[in-house]
Amino acid sequence: MTEPTSHPAIDAADIDAAARVVAPFAVRTPLLSFPVLNERVGTKVFLKPEMLQRTGSFKFRGAFNKLSSIPEAKRGGGVVAFSSGNHAQGVAAAAQILNMRATIVMPKDAPLSKRERTKSYGAEVVLYDRDREDREAIAGSIASKHGATLVRPYDDPFVIAGQGTAGREIAEDMTALGLAPDIVVAPASGGGLIAGVATAIKARFPNARLIVAEPDGYDDHGLSLRAGHREAHHAASRTICDALMAAMPGEMTFSINSKLLAQGVTATDAEVGAAVAYAYRELKLVVEPGGAVGLAALLAGRIDTRGKNVVIVLSGGNVDADLFAKLVA
Amino acid sequence: MTEPTSHPAIDAADIDAAARVVAPFAVRTPLLSFPVLNERVGTKVFLKPEMLQRTGSFKFRGAFNKLSSIPEAKRGGGVVAFSSGNHAQGVAAAAQILNMRATIVMPKDAPLSKRERTKSYGAEVVLYDRDREDREAIAGSIASKHGATLVRPYDDPFVIAGQGTAGREIAEDMTALGLAPDIVVAPASGGGLIAGVATAIKARFPNARLIVAEPDGYDDHGLSLRAGHREAHHAASRTICDALMAAMPGEMTFSINSKLLAQGVTATDAEVGAAVAYAYRELKLVVEPGGAVGLAALLAGRIDTRGKNVVIVLSGGNVDADLFAKLVA
Repeated sequence: MTEPTSHPAIDAADIDAAARVVAPFAVRTPLLSFPVLNERVGTKVFLKPEMLQRTGSFKFRGAFNKLSSIPEAKRGGGVVAFSSGNHAQGVAAAAQILNMRATIVMPKDAPLSKRERTKSYGAEVVLYDRDREDREAIAGSIASKHGATLVRPYDDPFVIAGQGTAGREIAEDMTALGLAPDIVVAPASGGGLIAGVATAIKARFPNARLIVAEPDGYDDHGLSLRAGHREAHHAASRTICDALMAAMPGEMTFSINSKLLAQGVTATDAEVGAAVAYAYRELKLVVEPGGAVGLAALLAGRIDTRGKNVVIVLSGGNVDADLFAKLVA
Repeated sequence: MTEPTSHPAIDAADIDAAARVVAPFAVRTPLLSFPVLNERVGTKVFLKPEMLQRTGSFKFRGAFNKLSSIPEAKRGGGVVAFSSGNHAQGVAAAAQILNMRATIVMPKDAPLSKRERTKSYGAEVVLYDRDREDREAIAGSIASKHGATLVRPYDDPFVIAGQGTAGREIAEDMTALGLAPDIVVAPASGGGLIAGVATAIKARFPNARLIVAEPDGYDDHGLSLRAGHREAHHAASRTICDALMAAMPGEMTFSINSKLLAQGVTATDAEVGAAVAYAYRELKLVVEPGGAVGLAALLAGRIDTRGKNVVIVLSGGNVDADLFAKLVA
C-alpha cells in the first residue's frame, strides 16, 4: 500500500487484502433484485444493501480494515475519529472488536440514533458545533493528548480499500450471475466508498460506468469531475442526506475518482424522500436519506439505463424513526 | 400429488417440482445473518426475509405454483381467493403474470396498503364484513358464477408445495454454509407456510426442530399440537398480526404439521411490536407484525436456542405506514 500523496492510492490487491481482514467480522451483504423495481425502471437493477452491514452502513468495512492495520505497539493509545454518524459507528464497532479505546467527535446536529448507537459500541462521544468549531482540530488535539491514532473518514488507503470490499463482492456476485455490471452507482460524501468500489469494479469490469450520486446542491464530486480538479459545492442550505455533507472531495479519493468515474448525478431532497418511501413500501428495506440518493437518481430518471445491468449501492440505513415516519407517510 | 384428504398431502418431490415452476418468477430470497442479533441471542441466527419476495410476502410462491397447475382449458374462468391481504397479493400477482383474471374477497378491515397493492396487480377486490359475512360462501358464489378456480390460502397441495420452496432454499443455503438448521421457526395462520417449510427441511434435516410461532391468544396450532387434533383458538380480541387470524389449523396443513412440528410458541402484541421496531432499528428490514412473530418469540426468550443454529422465517413486510411509524417510534 502506498503513501497518501502517490498514485494510485490503492489497487485491487489492496482490496483483496482488505477482504481477508474484514471477512471474519463484516457481513457479506447479498446482491438483491426486485421484479417490481426491474419493471419500473425497465432494465435489470441490482441493489447492494449496505444497511445490512454491521453498524447499519458500509463504514464498518473501512474502519475495521484501518484499525486492523494499526501496529500492536500503537493500539494502546486508541483511536479518534470525526464523523456525522456512520463512520463514527464503524470506528466504534471496530474498536470494540479489537479491544481499542475510541473517541468520536460528532456534530451536535447528528441524528440522535447515530449518536446513541455510537455510544452503544462503547465509544466516548464528544460533540461540536458544525458552524463554529473545527472538527479536525478537535480530533487532532484529542489524538495528540492520548497518543490516539486519527482514523480519517475517507482519505486513508486502508479505509478506501476496506470500503472497496463492497465493490469486490458486487463484482463476484455479478460474475456468479454471468452478468457484467454496466453501470454502478454509489453515493459520495468524501468519496471513499465510491473510490474503493470503483477500484474493485474496474479491475474486473474495465468497461463498467461508475456514477457518483449526490444530493442536489452538494454535488462537489460532480462539479470536480467536470472541472478536472477538486471543487467545493455551493450549498447554502442543509440537505436531508446528513451522511453526505462533506464540502469537497478528498484529495486521495479524488485522485482515484477523477480517473475512474464517468459522471455525477444528483437528486433533490424530495426525490430522496420518495426513494426512502419507495424502499420502505416496495423493497421492505430501511434506507437512510444519504443511502438512498443513488436509488433516488435512478427512480427520477437521471441515469440512462436502457439495456444496461445497473447496480445501486444503498450505503446505509441509520435514520431517526421520526424522520423515517415522516418520509414514508 | 395426492388428494387433499389422503396423507401425506405433499412430499419433498412436490416441493422440488414447485421450485422449478416458481424459480423464473419468484425471488430467491437470501439467508441473512446479523452479528448484532447473534450477539443478543447468544447463538447463530439466520433470517429468511420473505418480505423481499415478490408482493412482499411468501404468499406469491404458493399462489404462483397453484395457478400454474390450473389446466389451460380452465384458465379462462380466472381465479377467486379470500384473504386478509398477503394471499390476495400473491394470487393477484400470479394471475397477472399468467394473464388470468383474479377476484379477491378481502375483509373490510384489511390494512389499506394490502387492499391497494392487491388492486395494483390488476385484481378486482370485493370487500366483506369479517364479523357478519362468510368469506368462503362469497368466494364460492363468485367461483360458480364465473367458472373461476378457487385458490385456497393453505389447504391445497400446490399452495403448500409452493410455500415449501422457501424451506427448500433454507436447506440449500444452510448446506452451503456447512451448517444444520437445528431449529426452524415460522409463523402460521392456516399453516401452509410452515407445512411446506417443515416438509422441505425435514427431508434434508430429519433432526431439525420445527416450531410454529403464533400471536398470544391465536395459538390454535399450538393448542392443536398439544391436543393431537385440530382445535380453534379462544381469542376474544384482535391482534396486531392481521395476517395470522385464522380460527383453526387447516385440515390438510394439520395432517402435515401434526407429524412434523415439535412445538408452538407465542408472542404478545407488545413483543411483536418490539420485534418490528428491532427489525427496523437493528436489521434495517421492514417486517409486518404477523411476519415478526417468530422473531418476537426469539427475542422474548421463548425458544431454547442454546448451542443451536436457529432459522427464523420473516414471512412478510406489508404494513401500513401509520402503524409502522407507531411501532418503531
